[in-house]
Amino acid sequence: MTIRTVLFDVDGTLVDSTYLHVDAWQRALVEQGVTVDAWRVHRAIGKDSALLLESLAGDRDTAWTEAASERHDAHFRQQKHRLRAFEGSRELLRAIAARGVRVVLATSAPADELALLRAAIDADDAVHAVTSADDVDAAKPDPGILNIALDRADADPAEALVVGDSVWDMLAAARAGIKSIGVLCGGIGPDELRDAGASALYADPAALLTDLDRVL
Amino acid sequence: MTIRTVLFDVDGTLVDSTYLHVDAWQRALVEQGVTVDAWRVHRAIGKDSALLLESLAGDRDTAWTEAASERHDAHFRQQKHRLRAFEGSRELLRAIAARGVRVVLATSAPADELALLRAAIDADDAVHAVTSADDVDAAKPDPGILNIALDRADADPAEALVVGDSVWDMLAAARAGIKSIGVLCGGIGPDELRDAGASALYADPAALLTDLDRVL
Repeated sequence: MTIRTVLFDVDGTLVDSTYLHVDAWQRALVEQGVTVDAWRVHRAIGKDSALLLESLAGDRDTAWTEAASERHDAHFRQQKHRLRAFEGSRELLRAIAARGVRVVLATSAPADELALLRAAIDADDAVHAVTSADDVDAAKPDPGILNIALDRADADPAEALVVGDSVWDMLAAARAGIKSIGVLCGGIGPDELRDAGASALYADPAALLTDLDRVL
Repeated sequence: MTIRTVLFDVDGTLVDSTYLHVDAWQRALVEQGVTVDAWRVHRAIGKDSALLLESLAGDRDTAWTEAASERHDAHFRQQKHRLRAFEGSRELLRAIAARGVRVVLATSAPADELALLRAAIDADDAVHAVTSADDVDAAKPDPGILNIALDRADADPAEALVVGDSVWDMLAAARAGIKSIGVLCGGIGPDELRDAGASALYADPAALLTDLDRVL
């Protein structure tokens, strides 16, 4: 089947931000009175913030969840000068667009964070459509965000491909009936991504770019 | 064979410090003009600082390496209020010592960092001996630090066990002829640790403690 649309996760997939999110969430949780090991925070990254908080801190009321999210956002923004696209991210998006394949940024990041990420990637000319957390009530691992992304690109799941760095990206792709590729640059181990459904693995966007003829 | 000595890595194994080290090293490298992805820094954690820097920044002179290490140390110390032992670390060391098995902290951390880590663990009464980066010229993955640790406990490799969270811990144990167990709380994936020689895997010290009858 020909791939006509590639749906990219952004944090940890195109931009080196996963570890900054781990740090921001761990600080936010401690400030809210909840101690969580960094590696457990790392494994929850990629879920939307409400689901992430539920998995790490249990059932909480809306005020608590909003306060924790606000603290995360404040810590994360303090590190925004450190946001940097992975090597090859810009070139990968442009090479895909140059083949006539639609590039969609399908993320559950808040819109203001997404603006910072897009600036770091600096390839908006190659991007056909974008989603953010504002678009869906429940983001990944619910396939909602991917379905919105497919709609925006007028794409069929069978002709689409998801590229992501987290187990949640792979699981959401499977639920939406989309083939997925995992990248290791978010720091999740290869077997974790493979077990969640990744059809292939690459170190990072630069490695995926060198193999693009086989992927598309 | 009866286990008479358990050699523990400390950072990321008994104390939730791996992600703080990733952050400190990534900042230090950027300040020294070298951009390295966080996940690659993460995979180098557990090596002694000279080897870590060589693997991430290539061959550099001594002044550069020392400057980078000093920057790391400064960033890491700024986060020392966040150092916290994993759940079960203290109880695990005490349960092992209570069985008459010697506990050795075998780490390549500098002595001043080790003091902070020991304070976080708060189980010095259970610790038979300690090593630090000051003890050997080349620490892990060279088995040197483990051989020093064995000497200090007057232990035979065949009656010892290494517990660590990094690939480098597992490789150093194999080279020293010591059986190893991996813990996932440093954020390295299970297959990475298994491929490096881990004979068994546990989530964290608390999980290892519940299975101590089988391990010792």
